[in-house]
Amino acid sequence: MELWVTEMQTPALGITCKVRRTLVEEQTDYQHMAIVETEQFGRMLLLDGMVQTTEVDEFVYHEMIVHVALNTHPNPKRVAVIGGGDGGTIREVLKHPGVEKAVLMEIDRRVVEASREFLPSISGALDDPRVEIRIGDGFGHIRSAENEYDVVLIDSTEPVGAGGAATGLFSPEFYASVGRALKADGIMVAQTESPFLNQELIRRTQAGIRATFPITRLYLASIPTYPSGLWSFTLGSKVYDPLAVDPANIRQLPTRYYTPHVHHAAFQLPRFVEELVQSAAAVGGAV
Amino acid sequence: MELWVTEMQTPALGITCKVRRTLVEEQTDYQHMAIVETEQFGRMLLLDGMVQTTEVDEFVYHEMIVHVALNTHPNPKRVAVIGGGDGGTIREVLKHPGVEKAVLMEIDRRVVEASREFLPSISGALDDPRVEIRIGDGFGHIRSAENEYDVVLIDSTEPVGAGGAATGLFSPEFYASVGRALKADGIMVAQTESPFLNQELIRRTQAGIRATFPITRLYLASIPTYPSGLWSFTLGSKVYDPLAVDPANIRQLPTRYYTPHVHHAAFQLPRFVEELVQSAAAVGGAV
Repeated sequence: MELWVTEMQTPALGITCKVRRTLVEEQTDYQHMAIVETEQFGRMLLLDGMVQTTEVDEFVYHEMIVHVALNTHPNPKRVAVIGGGDGGTIREVLKHPGVEKAVLMEIDRRVVEASREFLPSISGALDDPRVEIRIGDGFGHIRSAENEYDVVLIDSTEPVGAGGAATGLFSPEFYASVGRALKADGIMVAQTESPFLNQELIRRTQAGIRATFPITRLYLASIPTYPSGLWSFTLGSKVYDPLAVDPANIRQLPTRYYTPHVHHAAFQLPRFVEELVQSAAAVGGAV
Repeated sequence: MELWVTEMQTPALGITCKVRRTLVEEQTDYQHMAIVETEQFGRMLLLDGMVQTTEVDEFVYHEMIVHVALNTHPNPKRVAVIGGGDGGTIREVLKHPGVEKAVLMEIDRRVVEASREFLPSISGALDDPRVEIRIGDGFGHIRSAENEYDVVLIDSTEPVGAGGAATGLFSPEFYASVGRALKADGIMVAQTESPFLNQELIRRTQAGIRATFPITRLYLASIPTYPSGLWSFTLGSKVYDPLAVDPANIRQLPTRYYTPHVHHAAFQLPRFVEELVQSAAAVGGAV
């Protein structure tokens, strides 16, 4: 018997991977969760049928959601990660020696537990003494924080699907709360889906983040198991501009995707993405 | 009934697209050819079951195989395209007003005919008076040319599959022939597959191109329907360095992906790709 796992990335597009075995599959309080061992990408975490991370290509997403902001901020000490229960984002945050505290706010305890058991190369850093894990609603946690973090990373699931746990994490109200949770020179980054397939979401989040953050910039990375293979992140900053960072001053870090030059190249957008961002700016300006 | 077309990108990885109808499907003298109308990507050309181009994302590949070289060469007049029977590469070449002659060398007459009939937005420029279409073996044509072209673009199928028509187009002998077909300041570009999935091929073509061209550089673009979504091109140049081009001097062209800044950003490689290229350099040096 051959087993294949297929994610319908859109109603008319799917990715299918050969599966050696299923390590865990269950309905949690929030979503359907599975970890399978694929031939192509190693172990793969799926939530509500959507690929979240794989052992083979997770490094791209996790390095790129973290290092751009943490190398733009001159001295990040307190970092919050919203979502990201697999621990990969935390692992990259802790590569920065100045970080004193990394708070993980994950709604689904089972994602953390299963990642600890079956994805050790991704979740390993969760045991670091600098890490605090808060299981619960990230929006609520952030709303109660004020002037507390240097960097907030929004490592959420997609704002869709049956669970829809992450929908609130893409709203202007949420970005305003993140703004208050950040210190006066704080930076946020959110994963904002594919510029080929999710243009409306990118337009909306651009406008929402821009309403709170004077410096709002989209950047890109290539992630094979994510729809279209091209993924966007949106950085919102109160003071520091990621484009003003001198590559020569960027910390040397053990990475496989991010480099000081990739830091800058990721902001050089294909023309259709540039135009997408500009159209969002116009909408944002009218708010 | 629902129809889906699935490309097995590797033995353990597939992409599947919902199909409205099949426009053409036949066995040509060289390969299995199909054009189907997909919901996600518009019309799609498949050769031996592998996606070659789609109406929705073809602009990335065709712009990026052409404009980097044609904007690096200060005055490209004669351009050869090997493969590329769909006409998309020729269309982009002709956007450069200085081009006097664009020669298409395609082995399979049926690809040109079917593209003319069913992919007019891609093939339309084939009727331009500057275009000469030579049906036949591209390697043979190139071998008989000497000091003739400013730019040669190798827009081939993958060097695999039952047909394997393109295998020779990835050999060091072929790149040496391209070197002779080019003028003393000529430039070539070859599509060289995915850095996530085809590392051995990239290592081999790097070494092969480097043996003939003193300036050999890999660059990347994001193509949703190609395996992993991240695609590499390798540029070989006798004199001009693509990195030395001043963005301010790059011709303004009607493009949707390529920009003067993308020109440079495409060469800023993720660390694992940088290391892949460096390992190839070491091999090449030992030849």
